[in-house]
Amino acid sequence: MWVVCSDLEGVFVPEVWINVAKKTGIESLKLTTRDIQNYDELMQYRLKILDEHNLKIQDIQSVIATIKPLEGALEFTRWLRSITRFVIVSDTFVEFAQPLMEQLEHPFLLCHSLEIDSSGRVTNYKLRQPDPKRKTVEAFQSLQYKVIAFGDSYNDISMLKAADIGILYCPPQNVINDYPELPVARNYQELTAILTAHIFQD
Amino acid sequence: MWVVCSDLEGVFVPEVWINVAKKTGIESLKLTTRDIQNYDELMQYRLKILDEHNLKIQDIQSVIATIKPLEGALEFTRWLRSITRFVIVSDTFVEFAQPLMEQLEHPFLLCHSLEIDSSGRVTNYKLRQPDPKRKTVEAFQSLQYKVIAFGDSYNDISMLKAADIGILYCPPQNVINDYPELPVARNYQELTAILTAHIFQD
Repeated sequence: MWVVCSDLEGVFVPEVWINVAKKTGIESLKLTTRDIQNYDELMQYRLKILDEHNLKIQDIQSVIATIKPLEGALEFTRWLRSITRFVIVSDTFVEFAQPLMEQLEHPFLLCHSLEIDSSGRVTNYKLRQPDPKRKTVEAFQSLQYKVIAFGDSYNDISMLKAADIGILYCPPQNVINDYPELPVARNYQELTAILTAHIFQD
Repeated sequence: MWVVCSDLEGVFVPEVWINVAKKTGIESLKLTTRDIQNYDELMQYRLKILDEHNLKIQDIQSVIATIKPLEGALEFTRWLRSITRFVIVSDTFVEFAQPLMEQLEHPFLLCHSLEIDSSGRVTNYKLRQPDPKRKTVEAFQSLQYKVIAFGDSYNDISMLKAADIGILYCPPQNVINDYPELPVARNYQELTAILTAHIFQD
């Protein structure tokens, strides 16, 4: 029996921080690990900007609630849930993901979390553990499941490599170049074809 | 952050074999581990009876589709999924659970599976691993989640003991007597109260 592990941003929903930046008009929230390579530094910078603009968690959630899942994402996740066990494994924070999960009918999501004070101010962030995507695959393998995983970027590679079958979904060209051994699906139809071949095999 | 692990039969749906026996009128399918203590012997006996009555997986699934989840189960599981990570951990078989999962809007389910030939005949069963309920709790703890678990009977005890918080849900009196240290919830309202106290604490 299989468990399907999937990334969230870039697969089912657009990039959250970039969209929060666009929708709030706060240009400085557009910075990513391409601009500030140290993740902790980037996150502390983001939290400082939220503070400067007096954006509470409620405000950010309201903004995120206006982001729509990618076209076809709801239908695809409904199908996956009806035929197998499906987990979203993301580097986002549960408080940010919540308005998006609601639109996707609450699939099973494993991710990080924020520290929020009683006023709604985001005071810090908590990474659940190092290399959480790989560890999630290993946890399900310890339960005697085989794992199919897919994701779009570098932070998914250790998950795709640990999985019994790893698939790149709509990756940028540099990721394809760096991991030519991984199969690529460019839309939900191609992904469906690969998944169906494996899931119905067992 | 928490993961909530729950039993299925007796918590969200009625006992499946007993209801299949009732609905098909096949009295001998009512036997449980109380009658035949060796589980493998019991299962081989059940498969023999299905064969004798020429019941294919499609027939059994049609019968199971007429079983309804317990009153309030759908609303309760919807609520759980909206506030936390929720997994059903069951000793049933995925092929039997499917018509019930559809009625519960496909929550995340870990359980066993059947071997079925191309005609739909159930030829054997596959237990995923020994002590799967306890191992599921441990897998989520390895992902740095705290686990709240609830279930109604003896096969849930190792899960309830491994969890950070274990709760007996609508258990028979002999289970209460044998495990007086475990808190008891007798309906979804009482369970909601216990869960809310813990989940909102963190």
